[in-house]
Amino acid sequence: MNKDLEIERSKVPFKIEELTNWFYGGEKNVKEKRFLENIFYSDPDLKSDTSYMSHVEKYEEAIRKVTVILKKLKHLVNQGQYNEEIYPKILGAQFLKHLIKEGNPTSVHFDMFIPGIKSMGTQVQQDEWLPKALTLKIIGTYAQTELGHGTYVRGLETTATFDENTKEFVLNTPTLTAYKWWPGNLGHTVNHALVMAQLYTKGKCYGIHAFIVPLRDLETHKPLPGVHIGEIGTKFGYNTVNNGFLGLKNVRIPRKNMLMKNSEVTESGEFVIHKNPLLTYGTMTMIRVGIIQEVQVFLAKAVTIATRYSLVRRQSPINPNDEIEPQIIEHTTQQYKLFVPLAKVFSLKITSDYLWNQYEDTMKKIDKGDLTTLPELHALSCCLKAICTNDAAEGTEICRLSCGGHGFLNSSALPDCYKMITPAQTYEGENTVLYLQTARYLMKTYGEILKGSKVTSTVAYLKKYVDLNSNQRESFDSSSRGILRALQYAAAGKISQAYNNLQQRMKNNNSKEQAFNQSGLDMIKIAEIHGRVYMLEVTLNEIEKSAKNSSPNLAFVFRDILELFSLDLATKYMGEMLQFVNITSQAIEIMQGRLEAVLRRMRQYVIGIVDAFDFSDQILDSTLGAYDGNVYERLIEAAKKSPLNQEDVNKSFHLYLKPFLKSNL
Amino acid sequence: MNKDLEIERSKVPFKIEELTNWFYGGEKNVKEKRFLENIFYSDPDLKSDTSYMSHVEKYEEAIRKVTVILKKLKHLVNQGQYNEEIYPKILGAQFLKHLIKEGNPTSVHFDMFIPGIKSMGTQVQQDEWLPKALTLKIIGTYAQTELGHGTYVRGLETTATFDENTKEFVLNTPTLTAYKWWPGNLGHTVNHALVMAQLYTKGKCYGIHAFIVPLRDLETHKPLPGVHIGEIGTKFGYNTVNNGFLGLKNVRIPRKNMLMKNSEVTESGEFVIHKNPLLTYGTMTMIRVGIIQEVQVFLAKAVTIATRYSLVRRQSPINPNDEIEPQIIEHTTQQYKLFVPLAKVFSLKITSDYLWNQYEDTMKKIDKGDLTTLPELHALSCCLKAICTNDAAEGTEICRLSCGGHGFLNSSALPDCYKMITPAQTYEGENTVLYLQTARYLMKTYGEILKGSKVTSTVAYLKKYVDLNSNQRESFDSSSRGILRALQYAAAGKISQAYNNLQQRMKNNNSKEQAFNQSGLDMIKIAEIHGRVYMLEVTLNEIEKSAKNSSPNLAFVFRDILELFSLDLATKYMGEMLQFVNITSQAIEIMQGRLEAVLRRMRQYVIGIVDAFDFSDQILDSTLGAYDGNVYERLIEAAKKSPLNQEDVNKSFHLYLKPFLKSNL
Repeated sequence: MNKDLEIERSKVPFKIEELTNWFYGGEKNVKEKRFLENIFYSDPDLKSDTSYMSHVEKYEEAIRKVTVILKKLKHLVNQGQYNEEIYPKILGAQFLKHLIKEGNPTSVHFDMFIPGIKSMGTQVQQDEWLPKALTLKIIGTYAQTELGHGTYVRGLETTATFDENTKEFVLNTPTLTAYKWWPGNLGHTVNHALVMAQLYTKGKCYGIHAFIVPLRDLETHKPLPGVHIGEIGTKFGYNTVNNGFLGLKNVRIPRKNMLMKNSEVTESGEFVIHKNPLLTYGTMTMIRVGIIQEVQVFLAKAVTIATRYSLVRRQSPINPNDEIEPQIIEHTTQQYKLFVPLAKVFSLKITSDYLWNQYEDTMKKIDKGDLTTLPELHALSCCLKAICTNDAAEGTEICRLSCGGHGFLNSSALPDCYKMITPAQTYEGENTVLYLQTARYLMKTYGEILKGSKVTSTVAYLKKYVDLNSNQRESFDSSSRGILRALQYAAAGKISQAYNNLQQRMKNNNSKEQAFNQSGLDMIKIAEIHGRVYMLEVTLNEIEKSAKNSSPNLAFVFRDILELFSLDLATKYMGEMLQFVNITSQAIEIMQGRLEAVLRRMRQYVIGIVDAFDFSDQILDSTLGAYDGNVYERLIEAAKKSPLNQEDVNKSFHLYLKPFLKSNL
Repeated sequence: MNKDLEIERSKVPFKIEELTNWFYGGEKNVKEKRFLENIFYSDPDLKSDTSYMSHVEKYEEAIRKVTVILKKLKHLVNQGQYNEEIYPKILGAQFLKHLIKEGNPTSVHFDMFIPGIKSMGTQVQQDEWLPKALTLKIIGTYAQTELGHGTYVRGLETTATFDENTKEFVLNTPTLTAYKWWPGNLGHTVNHALVMAQLYTKGKCYGIHAFIVPLRDLETHKPLPGVHIGEIGTKFGYNTVNNGFLGLKNVRIPRKNMLMKNSEVTESGEFVIHKNPLLTYGTMTMIRVGIIQEVQVFLAKAVTIATRYSLVRRQSPINPNDEIEPQIIEHTTQQYKLFVPLAKVFSLKITSDYLWNQYEDTMKKIDKGDLTTLPELHALSCCLKAICTNDAAEGTEICRLSCGGHGFLNSSALPDCYKMITPAQTYEGENTVLYLQTARYLMKTYGEILKGSKVTSTVAYLKKYVDLNSNQRESFDSSSRGILRALQYAAAGKISQAYNNLQQRMKNNNSKEQAFNQSGLDMIKIAEIHGRVYMLEVTLNEIEKSAKNSSPNLAFVFRDILELFSLDLATKYMGEMLQFVNITSQAIEIMQGRLEAVLRRMRQYVIGIVDAFDFSDQILDSTLGAYDGNVYERLIEAAKKSPLNQEDVNKSFHLYLKPFLKSNL
């Protein structure tokens, strides 16, 4: 154990396990988490350094690992310890992402293919397909996006045309841009896909529906006739997830392969609707909550690595004559870099939990026929997914850069954290498009408020603003709750301005949509601040509640985290707040002083917080972030493993360099 | 040619070649650039897609390419077209970075080993070593950073101890943390290094000096006795630059291998100083200008790719009933994403040119014994390196994300742009440490101004602020020059606050350095705004000058770029400006309107600007950014080249998946 870390840990004033239990929702969850992690992360058969491998080797190694994992799961189920729900739990998005570092080539089967059949298939269809899928007799993916079509789903070009004679659907990708492109696991792994296509019957188009399409022979794994399939090439990250392309040429599937829970085509080719397609908004919310949880984990990982390293690394004396260089965490600037993302880990966790509860509430209401809170939920899930993924991406890079050059090494595990987070900024709804969705909701809501309508809770602050005298400036107090009020006031002020601009543009003969596009920058801004208001409010309430229910020493920690989180938001949105709230220069100075003070306090016990995140060394797999802090020994050991270092002289010297040097330059 | 791009190009109102000539400093430079690019980038022997290769294969391929390039250079020199200065020009940092995409494994030889001998060696030493280095009889690197020591050079642990008996230096890395770590090309490529080590003679330490140390046998390339050498493993990027580690154990070199221009150890072991070591500040400035130029090129590349793609890609109707989806550049939010980084390309170019001139002026003054402008130059180069690399990294990622999922593909070339820029945020002075250097200068200067001292030009605005009545708030006008004045006022206000805080902290019994560290967040902020003030001032002056000297239609373009650049800065620093300058809500609204207007104007001719950057398709090497805009065809063609796509069924199916599927799950 590194001496510095030993000393740091001896000074932590709270019980680390108490915070761990809070973080994972109780002792039982922590136990199970550790039990499962131990099974999968301690197995030498699942350890391999793939960073030196070629692209093909990486893929093959990922497939090998998947089958090792499947055998372990089978064993757990056979032993009766778990039922089959353990499969999606382990092979779905989150659990494996530290083990198969560039992505599990079967994740989409568990994440989207099986859930897709569950949510869009009739009971008969579920009975037919789910047993095969759950036992991996078939492996599927979800094929929606196309080469030329992403976020705008209605623009998809793939067609499924009903042939009344044979009672079959005929699938085609009629153009180059109609090629399915991006679906995970599609390239060489799956043998089926849930294909989203424009449904045609009796010469009429009925929009996008889902079709189960067999792609490869179950015995030989060869592509079936009419199926053009492959992977889309190397990427910034996720290189073993086997993203693929798919062209379809007159591929015929039986009528029953259309998922028909929400609507169906009858044998005679009639199109019939069963359910309100609005309900898909709920599914999207669920997926977005999952994304926030996932990026939070990678942000927490990055913070853990960078914080431990900053407690071990010594550099740049603060007083020029000091003999010993200080731990770099003594530098105020370093504390700021690390602790703001650390506070955001808490906020991301709280926000996703809270949004999940709101999702469940809304679903219950919908079951009773009450759809009133669905638009609010959808609007929130849009801006929060965007904010949280942007924050996590930014925070992870700050952590990586805070480790200087060493953070650029793959062995630090920091580059991988970023590569896992940043795609979430564009997938499942590109962040800018999502902000615009939220902004549309805010404009509509603001208009209704002006007309005197009632409002739901997350936009109540707008109503309050409208009811105020517009010349009445909010006076400012710099407590967390005061910052929240100021931020609400700034958000409401911005929303009001944006609304007026929009009206003005419409008066100038622009259509509502043209005006909305022209006001795009306003719209992004208001959606972001609205989301921030929600996050601060939820974080504030939940942290205060947690502080009340904790041991006194942990309560201090919670309050420090809240203090830092709110002061950082105040700094970030000072420009907007100053436009709408009277804040004196003195108040700004006071907040700056408090910011510096909370950083100094957190520096004293921060090791306790990152230890409480409870990442095992196997999961971190980082030369800079291991529990014992033996950074330099690990760096050298990792370097020694490079294949280039297995021989004194690489063959390129003899092949290329020497002949050239010997020639008479 | 894609139809949309054809139409776009037909509407460009200015002569693209005129802007290209401006950008590269004249027609002659453009011609030479194209001539050289054609030689190296059109050779099929230098084309290879390395993204599917293993780490070792990538390195070997990079070495192969280097020797092909060397042969071409030899040919050019033999033909008498160029003298030997062409070697560092081509094999140094910039030119090859699009060809050997993860870094040239001989770049440091040309970038730092040869220049190091030139700047630190005596004439005798230069005569001995340079001919061998220039003809590659020896290949060297520059070994400064150590496993435990980076930015703080005085902390280096490697020792060079003079042995009076043998007249040799004995080199050692006495601890694990003393291992040299990071030097480019060190791992398996070079046979010499310029090692920076603590000089000891007669039992006394004389600080860091440079020593030429042979590392490998010139015939066999095997490491010499006492030399422990290898590469440091895979990284986020730059994987073929062959960064290495180096342990030295009693490695003896002759006395004459110490570079002795600035100081020397005599035969009898006396240490003698010849020159003012302050002069190294000049070299650091030169390197930082080079870094700004380099990141500017990659930012321009990213902007080019994302802009062309945004003119071809169609998505999300603005009016819901539109039949055809618009080019995504029609979305205001997309314009903002692309054009702000575009404007920054101009500002980065102008800033680095200007800083270079200032460097040359300062060097001339130093030759005459006048060191007065050196501190100002050093302070500027610190904060500008930090700002420009941060801006370029952020801008490149914005461009990548603006292409949605497709920007995540390596074939887009966008991930590579980021991987080439982001290391510059930590190397050659970590950005936060650099900001703190600038802040120290600002605090010192502000103190001197308060005492009534004269000031140099870049801090004249501080003097003006101090001379004003402190209650006299600047009134605001929103022209570019008005924004500059407001930003100067905000910078001066912040600097004044920071100065007062520092004084207060020193009164509270903190040492000057402790107080400075406690004020770290203030310090970062003032260094950044100070740099922004300089950049805006220089950009404003240079662009106005360029506009005056251009054809009328190009002059409009220059003025739009300036308008966007300054309005964006105003938005970014609104919080700081509002604290010190009276800006009405109305003025903010007006600026927002002008921002939207300039985006709309630039959208009309932006293709002309990115075409003017004059990146050939070979240099871009991007599926999304090629001149003809045939994005989708290129994506499919690139995917087809994946080795995984060369066979219908990957062996992992037979090896792992099928056996598992056949077992009775």
